[in-house]
Amino acid sequence: MNSDSIYQLLLQVKSGQLTPDKALEQLKDLPFKDLDFAKIDTHRHLRIGYPEVIYCAGKTIEQVVSIVKYKMEKQIDVMATRADQNVYEAIKIIAPSAIYHPVARIITIPLQHGRKINDSVILVITAGTSDIPVAEEAAVTASFFGNTVEKIFDVGVAGIHRLFMHLDRLRGAKVIVAVAGMEGALPGIIAGLVDKPVIAVPTSVGYGSNFEGLSALLTMLNTCAPGVSVVNIDNGFGAGYLASVLNGMH
Amino acid sequence: MNSDSIYQLLLQVKSGQLTPDKALEQLKDLPFKDLDFAKIDTHRHLRIGYPEVIYCAGKTIEQVVSIVKYKMEKQIDVMATRADQNVYEAIKIIAPSAIYHPVARIITIPLQHGRKINDSVILVITAGTSDIPVAEEAAVTASFFGNTVEKIFDVGVAGIHRLFMHLDRLRGAKVIVAVAGMEGALPGIIAGLVDKPVIAVPTSVGYGSNFEGLSALLTMLNTCAPGVSVVNIDNGFGAGYLASVLNGMH
Amino acid sequence: MNSDSIYQLLLQVKSGQLTPDKALEQLKDLPFKDLDFAKIDTHRHLRIGYPEVIYCAGKTIEQVVSIVKYKMEKQIDVMATRADQNVYEAIKIIAPSAIYHPVARIITIPLQHGRKINDSVILVITAGTSDIPVAEEAAVTASFFGNTVEKIFDVGVAGIHRLFMHLDRLRGAKVIVAVAGMEGALPGIIAGLVDKPVIAVPTSVGYGSNFEGLSALLTMLNTCAPGVSVVNIDNGFGAGYLASVLNGMH
Amino acid sequence: MNSDSIYQLLLQVKSGQLTPDKALEQLKDLPFKDLDFAKIDTHRHLRIGYPEVIYCAGKTIEQVVSIVKYKMEKQIDVMATRADQNVYEAIKIIAPSAIYHPVARIITIPLQHGRKINDSVILVITAGTSDIPVAEEAAVTASFFGNTVEKIFDVGVAGIHRLFMHLDRLRGAKVIVAVAGMEGALPGIIAGLVDKPVIAVPTSVGYGSNFEGLSALLTMLNTCAPGVSVVNIDNGFGAGYLASVLNGMH
Amino acid sequence: MNSDSIYQLLLQVKSGQLTPDKALEQLKDLPFKDLDFAKIDTHRHLRIGYPEVIYCAGKTIEQVVSIVKYKMEKQIDVMATRADQNVYEAIKIIAPSAIYHPVARIITIPLQHGRKINDSVILVITAGTSDIPVAEEAAVTASFFGNTVEKIFDVGVAGIHRLFMHLDRLRGAKVIVAVAGMEGALPGIIAGLVDKPVIAVPTSVGYGSNFEGLSALLTMLNTCAPGVSVVNIDNGFGAGYLASVLNGMH
Amino acid sequence: MNSDSIYQLLLQVKSGQLTPDKALEQLKDLPFKDLDFAKIDTHRHLRIGYPEVIYCAGKTIEQVVSIVKYKMEKQIDVMATRADQNVYEAIKIIAPSAIYHPVARIITIPLQHGRKINDSVILVITAGTSDIPVAEEAAVTASFFGNTVEKIFDVGVAGIHRLFMHLDRLRGAKVIVAVAGMEGALPGIIAGLVDKPVIAVPTSVGYGSNFEGLSALLTMLNTCAPGVSVVNIDNGFGAGYLASVLNGMH
Amino acid sequence: MNSDSIYQLLLQVKSGQLTPDKALEQLKDLPFKDLDFAKIDTHRHLRIGYPEVIYCAGKTIEQVVSIVKYKMEKQIDVMATRADQNVYEAIKIIAPSAIYHPVARIITIPLQHGRKINDSVILVITAGTSDIPVAEEAAVTASFFGNTVEKIFDVGVAGIHRLFMHLDRLRGAKVIVAVAGMEGALPGIIAGLVDKPVIAVPTSVGYGSNFEGLSALLTMLNTCAPGVSVVNIDNGFGAGYLASVLNGMH
Amino acid sequence: MNSDSIYQLLLQVKSGQLTPDKALEQLKDLPFKDLDFAKIDTHRHLRIGYPEVIYCAGKTIEQVVSIVKYKMEKQIDVMATRADQNVYEAIKIIAPSAIYHPVARIITIPLQHGRKINDSVILVITAGTSDIPVAEEAAVTASFFGNTVEKIFDVGVAGIHRLFMHLDRLRGAKVIVAVAGMEGALPGIIAGLVDKPVIAVPTSVGYGSNFEGLSALLTMLNTCAPGVSVVNIDNGFGAGYLASVLNGMH
Repeated sequence: MNSDSIYQLLLQVKSGQLTPDKALEQLKDLPFKDLDFAKIDTHRHLRIGYPEVIYCAGKTIEQVVSIVKYKMEKQIDVMATRADQNVYEAIKIIAPSAIYHPVARIITIPLQHGRKINDSVILVITAGTSDIPVAEEAAVTASFFGNTVEKIFDVGVAGIHRLFMHLDRLRGAKVIVAVAGMEGALPGIIAGLVDKPVIAVPTSVGYGSNFEGLSALLTMLNTCAPGVSVVNIDNGFGAGYLASVLNGMH
Repeated sequence: MNSDSIYQLLLQVKSGQLTPDKALEQLKDLPFKDLDFAKIDTHRHLRIGYPEVIYCAGKTIEQVVSIVKYKMEKQIDVMATRADQNVYEAIKIIAPSAIYHPVARIITIPLQHGRKINDSVILVITAGTSDIPVAEEAAVTASFFGNTVEKIFDVGVAGIHRLFMHLDRLRGAKVIVAVAGMEGALPGIIAGLVDKPVIAVPTSVGYGSNFEGLSALLTMLNTCAPGVSVVNIDNGFGAGYLASVLNGMH
Repeated sequence: MNSDSIYQLLLQVKSGQLTPDKALEQLKDLPFKDLDFAKIDTHRHLRIGYPEVIYCAGKTIEQVVSIVKYKMEKQIDVMATRADQNVYEAIKIIAPSAIYHPVARIITIPLQHGRKINDSVILVITAGTSDIPVAEEAAVTASFFGNTVEKIFDVGVAGIHRLFMHLDRLRGAKVIVAVAGMEGALPGIIAGLVDKPVIAVPTSVGYGSNFEGLSALLTMLNTCAPGVSVVNIDNGFGAGYLASVLNGMH
Repeated sequence: MNSDSIYQLLLQVKSGQLTPDKALEQLKDLPFKDLDFAKIDTHRHLRIGYPEVIYCAGKTIEQVVSIVKYKMEKQIDVMATRADQNVYEAIKIIAPSAIYHPVARIITIPLQHGRKINDSVILVITAGTSDIPVAEEAAVTASFFGNTVEKIFDVGVAGIHRLFMHLDRLRGAKVIVAVAGMEGALPGIIAGLVDKPVIAVPTSVGYGSNFEGLSALLTMLNTCAPGVSVVNIDNGFGAGYLASVLNGMH
Repeated sequence: MNSDSIYQLLLQVKSGQLTPDKALEQLKDLPFKDLDFAKIDTHRHLRIGYPEVIYCAGKTIEQVVSIVKYKMEKQIDVMATRADQNVYEAIKIIAPSAIYHPVARIITIPLQHGRKINDSVILVITAGTSDIPVAEEAAVTASFFGNTVEKIFDVGVAGIHRLFMHLDRLRGAKVIVAVAGMEGALPGIIAGLVDKPVIAVPTSVGYGSNFEGLSALLTMLNTCAPGVSVVNIDNGFGAGYLASVLNGMH
Repeated sequence: MNSDSIYQLLLQVKSGQLTPDKALEQLKDLPFKDLDFAKIDTHRHLRIGYPEVIYCAGKTIEQVVSIVKYKMEKQIDVMATRADQNVYEAIKIIAPSAIYHPVARIITIPLQHGRKINDSVILVITAGTSDIPVAEEAAVTASFFGNTVEKIFDVGVAGIHRLFMHLDRLRGAKVIVAVAGMEGALPGIIAGLVDKPVIAVPTSVGYGSNFEGLSALLTMLNTCAPGVSVVNIDNGFGAGYLASVLNGMH
Repeated sequence: MNSDSIYQLLLQVKSGQLTPDKALEQLKDLPFKDLDFAKIDTHRHLRIGYPEVIYCAGKTIEQVVSIVKYKMEKQIDVMATRADQNVYEAIKIIAPSAIYHPVARIITIPLQHGRKINDSVILVITAGTSDIPVAEEAAVTASFFGNTVEKIFDVGVAGIHRLFMHLDRLRGAKVIVAVAGMEGALPGIIAGLVDKPVIAVPTSVGYGSNFEGLSALLTMLNTCAPGVSVVNIDNGFGAGYLASVLNGMH
Repeated sequence: MNSDSIYQLLLQVKSGQLTPDKALEQLKDLPFKDLDFAKIDTHRHLRIGYPEVIYCAGKTIEQVVSIVKYKMEKQIDVMATRADQNVYEAIKIIAPSAIYHPVARIITIPLQHGRKINDSVILVITAGTSDIPVAEEAAVTASFFGNTVEKIFDVGVAGIHRLFMHLDRLRGAKVIVAVAGMEGALPGIIAGLVDKPVIAVPTSVGYGSNFEGLSALLTMLNTCAPGVSVVNIDNGFGAGYLASVLNGMH
């Protein structure tokens, strides 16, 4: 509700079309409703049919199922992250079309149709094989939001020549999601090679002084190559979402 | 601006006393002003003449002075924390009545009169002599907000009998601010003796594995005596403010 | 044993009703007994029928059961925290009226009657769905201590407009317990909106650099909004207890 | 040197215009130059006249001056970060047109002309007054790279209504750089309000358990609002650079 | 082999009773044997029949059994720490007299007889019920080394009057082992009350910012009460051993 | 591809043997191919028949098996680390000659013959019995790479004379791998005794403030005895590999 | 006031020599005074003439001087730790006999005479030259408390043979204070050589991953050699005090 | 003193040339003296004329000078690390030939002549300009020990092509010392390119979450490229020393 609509409302009050009581009712929640709708307003092209995301960790299966039910009744696409097989079995009962992406641990339920596909490429790239689950979480997320996603796995710095074989694809992408555990040097290397925004995703892959991803996280935050920004450890979803936002910019 | 005043405004629009344009003008900032004034509304008894607090650390003297000037023009009491002597010298030029509390590193400029004094006691207590600056920050803050403040210093657990000599005063207080560095055990001990809310303030006093107050902070967070809550390391102001809020409850 | 009772004892010695030996017996433990009773004395209105709380983690089922037994014989209300289903099964055998609150992981055995209910409201509020177990621990604790508890769940800062929809309830509460994991920003936001004491409870909900609640804990300790105090990570009981103390102040 | 120019070179060899020895001379550094120019190729619009950035911390004044000299001879714009007044004095001798931005601690030497200004807005926003130096580093960086930069300072979560007064400007920006110390909640709040990419910059502003910016850093990494990515503590330059890359995307 | 025995050997060489070759044979390992026996020498009263201690964690059952076998053949008392029921079952086969202390997780096999009992008291004291396993590890260790051990459990600072009821026993002990988790304040309190050496044992009991015993460890290291020394987290054995050494001093 | 071969190529272009198009094709990937072959080139003596190492942790059994299959087809020796019994069972189906080293958790498949054995000794030494698995990982790795490996276990500093008994073997080795958990002092002691390169491997063996190997890691990094370098916690493979490289130097 | 004197008092009440009012007056402070005197009582032999210790860090010169003055009036020996030259100059004005120990940063004022000297030896030993200030703090402390102190400096593990040259003195001491920074292995080595109680003092000497003494602290806490206990980083005073307590045991 | 010399001694006893008392005198210190000489024995080629190294940090100028004096009298080369200009001025008085390396903060006093120069190359390489002081400490150390040292500075991963320009020199070196701050990825990259031992030296260069070198340290420990070992943060001396040992192997 912007100035225009408030003005219309005031005109209606003046003309007697609307009683002050009714008008008050509408204005009362203005501070909050306005915020709410404002957001939808500026992003209508995105939010229409935009999948709602459910973070399953820490939620009971019952809670997840009831959220899914509610969304489905509103005909909203659903994506559930950090979901295990049990959650999927429970959801499939109420949503037979639900798809489980076991590596990404994501459940998707496509209800909407004809979502516009973004042709520019989000490239998801991992340093090692063990980083793939996090990368897949990013890739499935970005795909579901309508993006074209490409993937290159296992090109970490221990054999940096493997990375160079893919320079063309690096250059051809619009946004790069670089996923790495252990020392986490990959995103910095890439940012030094191409001037694309690099979303760095540290993973908890490793052992010893990796300290559950702390090592990779600090590496990425401290990279001297500019153009890198970092999301939380193992946060594939956050990287996929951010990549979608960046890919949608124009 | 609350529901009542909006309703009055709508009635004026309806009756033609106010044009929609004029009304719009008043309503335009509603989402924000409303939030702002709502807060004032529910706390009017506190906010009228309530001193505005300026955190000096990280601000230039020029910035502090210009904020003080602005507040003084609005006849608002001023309190500036983490202020050194230089800041005080600069403020005294524009505010000759400014008072400097060197131990607490606080500057106060009392402009309002007749603030109601709260008779119930906030007791500020320290484990050691070195904790006094933080305790004084709490005490000066609470005093300036109109509270009766009592102080007991240097009764730490190395000689716990010193604490017991003051049991009556502990029992007589409404809120206790317990300030301790090093091992930081004092607040937990007090909370085990009296059922008053104990605001625990860890200080960075100590050395070695004190790690700049981390030791005392963790001790206080982990105390098994319920009734303790913790503020940031060396955060005397925060403790004094919270004590004021608690002391004002009824 | 206060001055009066010591005086009575001395009169009895003087009058010969009590031999010095018997009197000595009673006085001998004075330093400790006195402390004990003093506490009861100042809080008699609370302690009569006040539930004794048992922290089950790290105790064997046998230990918990024998403590419960002892309390029940003394007709004291019992509350056991961090209790799993197995503990409950064992307790139900000796206390058929025991109630298990599975989300809060609390067992309560109400033995006393007619505890005075405090009408002012403690509002327990969570940032996410996953924070509910900790919030329930706080809520069940505060309820059992005779407080009126209201709850608002899942209003975290990712969609702050959800919080604003409840401003009236925030303003209507006397004490607010704000529970949040991940970034833990909720308590600071609330403290910036209303001038109530906000008890901040960090939870270990999250992943990656959340570091088992450290992230939320540090956020809450560092909030620039005054009026916030912090309890330990996941310490719903401590928050519920402290809220009871604050709610009982007048 | 791209494919085209290599092909021209090979044609010259074939035609005898260039001897194999001369051609070898030019090709010799190919593996590296190519990498270098390849990068230029994809970003030609940016790299032409793109200022070279010198990180002064840890370098002697002599080192900085000689790097500046070298760049100036090549007619490249120069930007030097983390520069104090002494560095500036030394540079001004060889570059009288050098400008010192004391709050941002940046020296700029504009040598190129007519750099194309990007009209879409990068909004730099801070939680507190003390975060301004880091914000200015971001703002000066982005400005120098040819972007339109707007700034909003001191709208932190302690009084969140201050932020809401600027919702229109938040919505009007293409990229948001959110700078915050202490609890660091601002970027998450903003990301929950508008669907723009939010570059979060934790600062070392604060005390106690802020631990030199760790608190703000963890908050930002753990925000549940998607669309946020994080750069290093106090890394205004990195944020400004990344914002430039994102602003230039289309 | 001490000076005396070397001198005897040299005399034998001189007198021809021993050839240089034979003497060399005995002297060859001197650097090591000497070190070994030197230790035995100064502590002969202790080492004769002194139980050898096996730390079971990280060892296979086979390894533990074979070490036990070897010791038994040499008629040495055996004590195995961090031993679970499975280890005990395996040991009982070769050592039917083995005793399992399940709370302390210690297996003892008394082979020697008539070990002199030290009459002065080692007092093992815990803050909570959950600290008992660590305390028992200390107590069983000290008992097995021939000391008189007394125990007081569950007298933590949340109700410090409970501690005072035992002041006489605190004063009567020669060495105090104080075991505490959570905030870990108990050892400091005790050291402030009595001038006995206090061996502080932090435990990993607690949750949240306890960080697996770090909180208690730091508290104990930072105690302002002198006379406290600290062993590793949960290191009941180390405390029991050190207490034995101190108790044996005269 | 080095200068010579580029020169040959240019001569061929000049002479017409090669068209510019064909030459361009070969030059295009030069930056990357060159890197790739360069590595093979300089290390041909090593890489031929050099076992490929698969890090199994975080990989599915299917992934490991398919990598093994691929290597076997190329007749390359295979070594798989961090492999459990299940992985071994799956590999044995396609590689009946596979050997499982259960303590080292390594699977080896020797396919090549006649690998040259290096006669100089790599000595792997542990402080405790519990460090053996990490030491075995180092030993199996070094053995498989063709080195002569000797082992001394359980000579930690608690009884340093045990170490001295092996001084000759320490002096006889060319490279020493010293593995220790808990306090991790062993590598520094050894480096103070012999002037051989000491590869220090911290292990996560220990408890309490060992913090999963952090204690041993810091000890080793801070040793005042020069000649020590450190690999990651529990990184037996890394130590074994590095020892091979050092042992192969001449 | 002990049982006897209370009994006398009660007899006086009974006999009428003392009115209940007068008796009450004497008994009133009993809980606290008793604690206080009890301590003195059990340690009378120590406390008479026992120096009071003032921790100067964090205290103003004025505070230190006034504490010293007070003690001197009561004819109590004074020791002030962490004192710099300025504090000494100020104290010398009121206490011309004050002695400054610059390396230990301790001021001592011997007022009492004839303190009994303990003949058994406390041996203070350091790993490096840089650890000497902390060692001197321990040595001066122990000396002032009447102990015979010996010192061996710079015998760290980098050249462990230096330590062995002093085995006789290690064996001859009753208590050993081992001071070490960097890797901090010295106390564990010593505890493995002699069965004396070893008080380990980590120092903040070192750099890099020493992290202000954390490395040495963790090493000492994790030593596998039993008989070691640890005090805070750089806490020479605490070690000297504890050594005095242990040396006084019999 | 080895077996031979003991045998000679025994023969002398047998023959009466040596009394048992005199022989005992010589044998008494055998355990330690033997160790000492043993070390010299195995490394005689190194130790003759080998410079003694003095770590100046934490030592007074007087202490350093007296150590230097002592060494010079014994005609031993001296190297003093972490030495500032003041130390140098003091040393120059007694050693006019002393040379100060200001960037490396090393003082060297070459007294011996004709030290054999090792022709194989130690390559010291840095990621940034700010890492040069640590690199110079390594280079000066290795040079002084008689090695041929080459240096490449400022080839960090932000522009990895700069590194590739030096592949030939990387391949030509026998040992590589790679020095890097911030993200610290350089050593891992190099180890992935060449199969030389890479000594990784993290530096404290950087800011924010670099945490004084922790970031670079963890990166290096976690590198997936084998062949890397790590020394302490900023430990240029340790790296230079280790490189000398490795370079001397054959």
